[in-house]
Amino acid sequence: MALIVQKYGGTSVGDFDRIRNVAGRIARTFDKGNQVVVILSAMSGVTDKLINTAEQITEFPDKREMDVLLSTGEQTTVALMAMTLKSMGYKAKSLLGYQAEILTDSQSCSARILDIGATRLTELLAENHIVIVAGFQGCDAAGDITTLGRGGSDTSAVAVASGVGADQCEIYTDVDGVYTADPNICKKARKLDQISYDEMLEMASLGAKVLQIRSVEFAMKYNVPIHVRSSFNEEVGTMVVSEDANMEKVIVSGVTHNKNEARITLKKVPDTPGIASRILSPVSEAGIIVDMIIQNTRSGHMTDLTFTVGKTDYKAAMDVSKKTAKEINAEEVLGDENIAKISVIGVGMRSHYGVAAKMFTTLAAENINILMISTSEIRISCVIEEKYTELAVQSLHTAFGLDQE
Amino acid sequence: MALIVQKYGGTSVGDFDRIRNVAGRIARTFDKGNQVVVILSAMSGVTDKLINTAEQITEFPDKREMDVLLSTGEQTTVALMAMTLKSMGYKAKSLLGYQAEILTDSQSCSARILDIGATRLTELLAENHIVIVAGFQGCDAAGDITTLGRGGSDTSAVAVASGVGADQCEIYTDVDGVYTADPNICKKARKLDQISYDEMLEMASLGAKVLQIRSVEFAMKYNVPIHVRSSFNEEVGTMVVSEDANMEKVIVSGVTHNKNEARITLKKVPDTPGIASRILSPVSEAGIIVDMIIQNTRSGHMTDLTFTVGKTDYKAAMDVSKKTAKEINAEEVLGDENIAKISVIGVGMRSHYGVAAKMFTTLAAENINILMISTSEIRISCVIEEKYTELAVQSLHTAFGLDQE
Repeated sequence: MALIVQKYGGTSVGDFDRIRNVAGRIARTFDKGNQVVVILSAMSGVTDKLINTAEQITEFPDKREMDVLLSTGEQTTVALMAMTLKSMGYKAKSLLGYQAEILTDSQSCSARILDIGATRLTELLAENHIVIVAGFQGCDAAGDITTLGRGGSDTSAVAVASGVGADQCEIYTDVDGVYTADPNICKKARKLDQISYDEMLEMASLGAKVLQIRSVEFAMKYNVPIHVRSSFNEEVGTMVVSEDANMEKVIVSGVTHNKNEARITLKKVPDTPGIASRILSPVSEAGIIVDMIIQNTRSGHMTDLTFTVGKTDYKAAMDVSKKTAKEINAEEVLGDENIAKISVIGVGMRSHYGVAAKMFTTLAAENINILMISTSEIRISCVIEEKYTELAVQSLHTAFGLDQE
Repeated sequence: MALIVQKYGGTSVGDFDRIRNVAGRIARTFDKGNQVVVILSAMSGVTDKLINTAEQITEFPDKREMDVLLSTGEQTTVALMAMTLKSMGYKAKSLLGYQAEILTDSQSCSARILDIGATRLTELLAENHIVIVAGFQGCDAAGDITTLGRGGSDTSAVAVASGVGADQCEIYTDVDGVYTADPNICKKARKLDQISYDEMLEMASLGAKVLQIRSVEFAMKYNVPIHVRSSFNEEVGTMVVSEDANMEKVIVSGVTHNKNEARITLKKVPDTPGIASRILSPVSEAGIIVDMIIQNTRSGHMTDLTFTVGKTDYKAAMDVSKKTAKEINAEEVLGDENIAKISVIGVGMRSHYGVAAKMFTTLAAENINILMISTSEIRISCVIEEKYTELAVQSLHTAFGLDQE
């Protein structure tokens, strides 16, 4: 007998048939003698619909009230799921965020979990109930409803798993697990049996949409093993776990790509101390997050500064940069939306040399020009022209021995 | 400055324009220097839609989970209303049932309010907030969401008004107030300036659909003055208040009619002790509420027993009665769906004679035959043939001096 937390996303509970299907899966897990806690998202599309409703009232809806409104989405699914299980003859009860004692800070619409009480939850489990907890929502110290931001139900699941001391936290999604690369552009991508929290964090922040970043941070902090798997079949997925010695033997675990960035270059700016701050401060003051930053030395007292931002912020960042360029007498501002960031990720890099060299050689062999480079302890990223994305991912996947047999 | 509780029903917040309209009314009340607490129902149609959703899952949805589901309706309206007021520049916050500390028993789907805490509510008022409270919902001692049954938001409003010690509880609805008769069938009906709790209770239970019965009981118990008025205009409506000496001067305050009952007669049943119980117990065991009961003495040891039930229960009551009739050897069972119950109501009856006589004389003068009679301290009801309903109401309205000048 184990204590298992299962999380099902919006597509898995998207209509009545799917709710019944998930109920069947929950029942089978329970019938095997396990204690089961289930975390649910809102039915797919519901959250967007609620946001749209609020925006019909006012362009900038009050965030506290937005949380009250949005939390009805998960409230609806947990009630329907508990009804379904009851009608199948199981003892089941729904709990909302405040009832499951998911205590958060007061940051409406993007609250962070501070603590999990789980008194009631543990009581209900002891009484042999299947407990259905509303994901994405919590409450602050004042008793106000808060929500955790997009994908927050993953974090709810990991937090509840740590709160009740679950043996496993299963995240059910519409993919089979975590892959060595996006199977849509790399036919030879393999599903990983396991991956470390650190690697998963790099993957998540680089565009693999499997798990919310914060849920991985939370799992790492409280050492909660996550099992990412599909709700549409019974296959074993990918375990996201603490790093162990074995993992270091694999140098590269995956290749990711991200087409959602754009690049801005200010040419021939005066190479004086503080020039990067002079250029980038106005950008961050405009609420724009800068990802990579590179400063090239040029001849004389001039330098080029290049940085990348999300594509949705590109226009605003260009406007700000053109204004700055005028003020500091830069020669010109160049922009490029047709770029992609390709990364290789692996905890094994820490103890192996030559990964960067191999990456550059592989790209060069395909005549792919590298526009920017950045690295972390377990990751190397190159910005290239967008049109080479697929070719770059495929050739790196092969070069690092990731192709399936 | 006064502390005013306002309650708006589902049609008053039925769409975005109406929500904005109600927000304007709330704002005007606040701008006059009043403290304002608002109780809202779900947008019209929403509760029925949610019930329908649950019934697609299972024929008999779990009642605890039904409450979790249904309470999302009011949760949505309070969030939208608070957003609207915030966007207009007012300090406003929504509170759900448990946040407003509306403590109920654990009777899911028809809970009764036990107590109102109102700590948070009072704090928010002191901070100059307009507080928007979700009607229809509360929570039990275990922290589970409960709902109060159809029309429960009226009761929420009266309970909150008593909890915060409001000066007035305004119930906004789609009619102008309480009338001396239904204006749809009696053109000379007048809006009453005031009516006593006792009279309102008789009116409410006899088919005037202005206020939920329990809200009136609650108001009477805690002496909360209710102002029933329209949300579509600025007219003063009807005050529902404690009886005072002046009220007794008016002998009859109103004439009501109810076409929603049907009559069942068991003819020639043995006139033995306990025969009424023998006939009516099986009816109530079938979950059917019996209204009027009349036993006529006949010659010999035989009697006729007649009773009325709601029209929706008529078929079931007939089936049960036919079975009983066979068992006790009654001669036959007669049924009649074409009846109406006409009542005259007034606290003045207590101290005046001749009201019943005047009622019978008036009906007789119109050749309307009386089929059944029942009375209470402040009410006389006659069952007549349904086709005479309008004529009976109009002639009684005139006879008791209720016609407008």
